[in-house]
Amino acid sequence: MTKPIHVTVWGENVHERENPIVAQVYPDGMHACIAEGLRTDAGLEVGTATLDEAEHGLTESKLAGTDVLVWWGHAAHGKVKDAIVERVLSRIWEGMGFIALHSAHYSKVFKRLMGTSCSLTWREAGERERLWICNPGHPIAAGIDRFFEIKNTEMYGEPFAIPTPDEIVFLSWFEGGEVFRSGCTWKRGNGKIFYFRPGHETYPIYFHPIVRQVLGNAVRWAAPEGQAWIDTCPNVPIDQAREKLIVKGPRLHREGEQGFR
Amino acid sequence: MTKPIHVTVWGENVHERENPIVAQVYPDGMHACIAEGLRTDAGLEVGTATLDEAEHGLTESKLAGTDVLVWWGHAAHGKVKDAIVERVLSRIWEGMGFIALHSAHYSKVFKRLMGTSCSLTWREAGERERLWICNPGHPIAAGIDRFFEIKNTEMYGEPFAIPTPDEIVFLSWFEGGEVFRSGCTWKRGNGKIFYFRPGHETYPIYFHPIVRQVLGNAVRWAAPEGQAWIDTCPNVPIDQAREKLIVKGPRLHREGEQGFR
Amino acid sequence: MTKPIHVTVWGENVHERENPIVAQVYPDGMHACIAEGLRTDAGLEVGTATLDEAEHGLTESKLAGTDVLVWWGHAAHGKVKDAIVERVLSRIWEGMGFIALHSAHYSKVFKRLMGTSCSLTWREAGERERLWICNPGHPIAAGIDRFFEIKNTEMYGEPFAIPTPDEIVFLSWFEGGEVFRSGCTWKRGNGKIFYFRPGHETYPIYFHPIVRQVLGNAVRWAAPEGQAWIDTCPNVPIDQAREKLIVKGPRLHREGEQGFR
Amino acid sequence: MTKPIHVTVWGENVHERENPIVAQVYPDGMHACIAEGLRTDAGLEVGTATLDEAEHGLTESKLAGTDVLVWWGHAAHGKVKDAIVERVLSRIWEGMGFIALHSAHYSKVFKRLMGTSCSLTWREAGERERLWICNPGHPIAAGIDRFFEIKNTEMYGEPFAIPTPDEIVFLSWFEGGEVFRSGCTWKRGNGKIFYFRPGHETYPIYFHPIVRQVLGNAVRWAAPEGQAWIDTCPNVPIDQAREKLIVKGPRLHREGEQGFR
Repeated sequence: MTKPIHVTVWGENVHERENPIVAQVYPDGMHACIAEGLRTDAGLEVGTATLDEAEHGLTESKLAGTDVLVWWGHAAHGKVKDAIVERVLSRIWEGMGFIALHSAHYSKVFKRLMGTSCSLTWREAGERERLWICNPGHPIAAGIDRFFEIKNTEMYGEPFAIPTPDEIVFLSWFEGGEVFRSGCTWKRGNGKIFYFRPGHETYPIYFHPIVRQVLGNAVRWAAPEGQAWIDTCPNVPIDQAREKLIVKGPRLHREGEQGFR
Repeated sequence: MTKPIHVTVWGENVHERENPIVAQVYPDGMHACIAEGLRTDAGLEVGTATLDEAEHGLTESKLAGTDVLVWWGHAAHGKVKDAIVERVLSRIWEGMGFIALHSAHYSKVFKRLMGTSCSLTWREAGERERLWICNPGHPIAAGIDRFFEIKNTEMYGEPFAIPTPDEIVFLSWFEGGEVFRSGCTWKRGNGKIFYFRPGHETYPIYFHPIVRQVLGNAVRWAAPEGQAWIDTCPNVPIDQAREKLIVKGPRLHREGEQGFR
Repeated sequence: MTKPIHVTVWGENVHERENPIVAQVYPDGMHACIAEGLRTDAGLEVGTATLDEAEHGLTESKLAGTDVLVWWGHAAHGKVKDAIVERVLSRIWEGMGFIALHSAHYSKVFKRLMGTSCSLTWREAGERERLWICNPGHPIAAGIDRFFEIKNTEMYGEPFAIPTPDEIVFLSWFEGGEVFRSGCTWKRGNGKIFYFRPGHETYPIYFHPIVRQVLGNAVRWAAPEGQAWIDTCPNVPIDQAREKLIVKGPRLHREGEQGFR
Repeated sequence: MTKPIHVTVWGENVHERENPIVAQVYPDGMHACIAEGLRTDAGLEVGTATLDEAEHGLTESKLAGTDVLVWWGHAAHGKVKDAIVERVLSRIWEGMGFIALHSAHYSKVFKRLMGTSCSLTWREAGERERLWICNPGHPIAAGIDRFFEIKNTEMYGEPFAIPTPDEIVFLSWFEGGEVFRSGCTWKRGNGKIFYFRPGHETYPIYFHPIVRQVLGNAVRWAAPEGQAWIDTCPNVPIDQAREKLIVKGPRLHREGEQGFR
């Protein structure tokens, strides 16, 4: 039997409580809806965490036990504490997968991973979106045909200010005339990262069966595949060099001293 | 006549004043030595800035007039103010080139651009380094033959925790048995980034004629080549959609409102 | 004064003579129209070459004097001789830029550079195309605003079977509902490569002022920027190793012998 | 129980029969030795194929049943038939993994996948090689510490004329002073590609336990992970466009006709 993949769905859970339209669409919170969709996959063990929990629900031990972290945020990006952002980044570098949803393009974690502004253009008109698959053989697109459609959605348009993705899985066509790189992958350290555009909170997008299928595929794709690794800039003692060395110059650091940070 | 490229060499200027060995090698500061080397290229206009100046010498107008920023830091990475880091990042995204030297692998700006830990291994033994050129046709390697050597240097070894570079220009061989990706390029937004390994402060590496040649080449390579661009996530008004749209669903934002950050 | 960039526009010139619709749109051949557009840029020296010339007009000396080769082909990809394809590839690796237009996605040279099938989907209905700029600061997009439109064109749709581009400059939206990566860059050896989608031969697309502007931008971007380099797998004689070596094992090759091909 | 991965080890099997030194090191052929090493992994089903078999042992059905193809060739690259090369490429694009060993940098298949010259420098002196791991968390490096050593080997040095790898897993240090990108990954179509440098035929390198471990890791990494996909440039009939279209211009092709190749 294959080991289950441990997934944590993080949601800021703000609009669901403050905005009546969102509350009606996602009465239990968006994180709960996303988690419910993932639980239909028997190989996944799915938990949730939210902004208002202690340490935003992302304690050291919770992250240590998480294989893939799914991130929904929109109204409260600025309320996520920097110390938690650093902790999430370190765990990603170690190998945890990270899936950024829709407005999470502007989350602190995603912006830190990208190193760019992550800007885009947008419009709320409930228009139609068609997501085309750029590589029908990609595991994130498994089981989908050439495209799928979302009847009513917010538009995100290019330019999307990201570094070149390793692969583009989905490209969106919008009724109003725009296009967008809607499914993109990167690797940072040993963490696999997937950005997936669909998901505005005033529409029931996380109930959409193909959106749910993509999220399940993405979680499986982003699960760690190597050994956990993150480094701390170790000094190599001179007498442990693989080729014999005689010290030939002055040094800033004494033997065994840490480097600067 | 071609327009000159405006270069700013930033140095933290700490070790040069506090450590007598470094003070002897670089009596005017490392930034001054690096700038002096670049000034031998008639097409470059070279200024400097240091940590202890107001705003670290990196005011809005100074950055606006800088085409390429060269960064030396080691002992005082943590003293660089976050607001200045953000300002430098924005200017890089707009198109300013950025050259990170040696220990700047751990500078705040470089780590923010990479989105990884930027860890490596290191040893101070004054050993020999040989830098091989991976692509003799690359403009950063112009005028150099297949390799060049540095007689005494600190060692940096793999694993170097960076995202895959766009191109690797130099790979280092060390006397003690290690290897390192010593010359790497990336692009973030419209800014071209070059990381160049040579440069420990207890050795006169920035007086080395080929190191100076590489820095001149790198500055020319990193100069902006397109139009300055950085974006602010603009809303596209519904009546300005290129294809006629009728609003079909609820909205979070009123017309003209800003998105969340 | 800056040195001019030498451009060769290669056209197969088949449909222009055999198909009356194409002959009417491009009476002098498509290569002539493309060259005419580029000649409005004073910094470019533009010549042409066609399939029916000796060596397809791509002699050793013609290629040696070409900085950027622009390629139009469609009906006669299979008639391009393999020896000429190899010659063009070698010159690209040395540093010559290569711009593949529209149906050149299936040209021998482009397929060899990509290493993939280069397949796509297509439809001829004279529909509207809108090309969005993914990075308004990219030199290939200089002088264009956020998008431009082509009133009547053939559709090319995803999946486009290419390796991940270094950068995507244009993404297309089609009236019939598809999307396409319409402006993509790669580097192979020292040659910069740009694929540009617009250009079906039954429409006057190469008369379109913005298409012409993009082609001019692309030629300037693709011009060689380093020193010409291509290698021949040289043996390094043992006595020329940078570190002293004593032969410690058997050899397949005698000293000075060539490697296998 | 997990499905086994089907591996085919292809060897040209020329030097093993013609050169007495090689025959002594690899009496059953190099392909047999490589296959034997892989068979110690219970999850792999390993077969072999050689140049002198009909269709070089790479029939349509053999390839259809192969998940990962391991390729050894050196003296007889030019004898591999182009039709078989095309067949192997198509199967890679569909999803089959491909592992190119040592001198296979100059094999027809590898050169076609790369689109570059694949040149390097080399020396036969039986010198020492140390392979450093650039990312200790990468699955291809699983179970290995920071480096491993090969006591006697041929040297391969930079410049290695390849397109930028997706990831570099190993970098080599050589006793004679050179460095080399010895473990590199790419993706072409849906096929994962790994180039692994170690392997000169006059040394017992494929008996080395860590070399064998890397090959096992690499095979597992390169196994297909999505659904097989390769495309044939299909026409999209106008009446099947997702958005209603009215034909607005002339056409080169009649409805249902194939495109040009």
